[in-house]
Amino acid sequence: IGSKVAILTVSDTVASGAGPDRSGPRAVSIVQASSEKLGGVSIVATAIVSDDVSKIQDVLVKWCDIDKVDLILTLGGTGFSPRDVTPEATKPLLHKETPGLLYVMMQESLKVTPFAVLSRSAAGIRGSTLIINMPGNPNAAAECMEALLPSLKHALKQIKGDKREKHPRHV
Amino acid sequence: IGSKVAILTVSDTVASGAGPDRSGPRAVSIVQASSEKLGGVSIVATAIVSDDVSKIQDVLVKWCDIDKVDLILTLGGTGFSPRDVTPEATKPLLHKETPGLLYVMMQESLKVTPFAVLSRSAAGIRGSTLIINMPGNPNAAAECMEALLPSLKHALKQIKGDKREKHPRHV
Amino acid sequence: IGSKVAILTVSDTVASGAGPDRSGPRAVSIVQASSEKLGGVSIVATAIVSDDVSKIQDVLVKWCDIDKVDLILTLGGTGFSPRDVTPEATKPLLHKETPGLLYVMMQESLKVTPFAVLSRSAAGIRGSTLIINMPGNPNAAAECMEALLPSLKHALKQIKGDKREKHPRHV
Ligand code: NA
Repeated sequence: IGSKVAILTVSDTVASGAGPDRSGPRAVSIVQASSEKLGGVSIVATAIVSDDVSKIQDVLVKWCDIDKVDLILTLGGTGFSPRDVTPEATKPLLHKETPGLLYVMMQESLKVTPFAVLSRSAAGIRGSTLIINMPGNPNAAAECMEALLPSLKHALKQIKGDKREKHPRHV
Repeated sequence: IGSKVAILTVSDTVASGAGPDRSGPRAVSIVQASSEKLGGVSIVATAIVSDDVSKIQDVLVKWCDIDKVDLILTLGGTGFSPRDVTPEATKPLLHKETPGLLYVMMQESLKVTPFAVLSRSAAGIRGSTLIINMPGNPNAAAECMEALLPSLKHALKQIKGDKREKHPRHV
Repeated sequence: IGSKVAILTVSDTVASGAGPDRSGPRAVSIVQASSEKLGGVSIVATAIVSDDVSKIQDVLVKWCDIDKVDLILTLGGTGFSPRDVTPEATKPLLHKETPGLLYVMMQESLKVTPFAVLSRSAAGIRGSTLIINMPGNPNAAAECMEALLPSLKHALKQIKGDKREKHPRHV
């Protein structure tokens, strides 16, 4: 059945109804199109919240601790503006940080635009859930997803404790 | 009028009068020469402190919270020696981390010398102020500044909440 | 006499006797073969512990605070699986983080395999000891060691407070 994926759009504009959610549906499409490379995926939830630490955390904790989602992608709220707080909402919830995912997202995004450095994304593991912050810009999020694809399947299997994935170099 | 910039030289040697401040004046020159690329700048303060956590923090907090400086560059105290404590003084003061700035400074500095890995720089946002630790070596600081120039103008505008800068890829 | 180096293999499998320690002896060989590039080294201790935060921390604290080891390499426990806790054991013990070492290990490892992003290594300084987490896979650890060699000698000299190493670019 593959991995359970949930996608959270973080945006004052979208949450207030002042604009459409361009990022969420695009991310859903990308994840579904990448299903095979990810070892199979099922989008089990999507949501939209404003740029508010508590509201972001409420959704993340529910998806991790109650719904036992395997992978959460957040979209937006990673920039330098005063309302951008997604990393600050995410980091206190993480049991383990996964800096390599941030490294490769930055490395690949910088090949497209120097503005990639304006992403302050966090990423890590809470329980058995991998949480990754992505930029709100749909193209930027697509580039981040592309950067993660070569390793994400193995990451998700390792988190589930699959011993055969412990040394993927030898697989 | 552009952005208000302050530059803090952190060095026991310079603070005690045992040696000249080679880093501070060089950084002032670089910032002024980059004024156009940064959307206009004004150097509003410079200071010299010893490698002491409390003394570094006193200056940073004043410049951020009272003087409302837009950009603070610290110079020195980022290495591995026992007296190098600038990142440890800086990090507790940050409200938000900006890892992309560290990434690109490291990426570009490593193209010049493998010793770039000896910089332990921190960077992030306190209130409406961006604080960036740079190495004390004037050439190394110049390379870091060069690495930041393509994105720093947008970073400073975003911190001020300029909505037009929210999606710089679309500008 | 050079730097005192200790190597800690972190592995449930090895600690329980269910499998051989392939990583530890390989790391010892690599360090000894790199002795000249590191300014001289002496392997003063090796140990094997299970993937347990307290057991890892007990060894690290003893080696840092009592034995005054100059460099500790840990091997293993840096992945995404539930038992991988070496970074979580290491980070609370660090007085200073050394992100440049992590950057260059990731940069070089990614040239070999995209699975390098699955390493969650931490690195930093406790007292006068440099602690670096490396992957358990012997080839991956060897690649990390290779990535660090150009700067590690200077890092170790700086930690000891050698003033001549303060500005290695000028050496
Ligand atoms: Na890189």
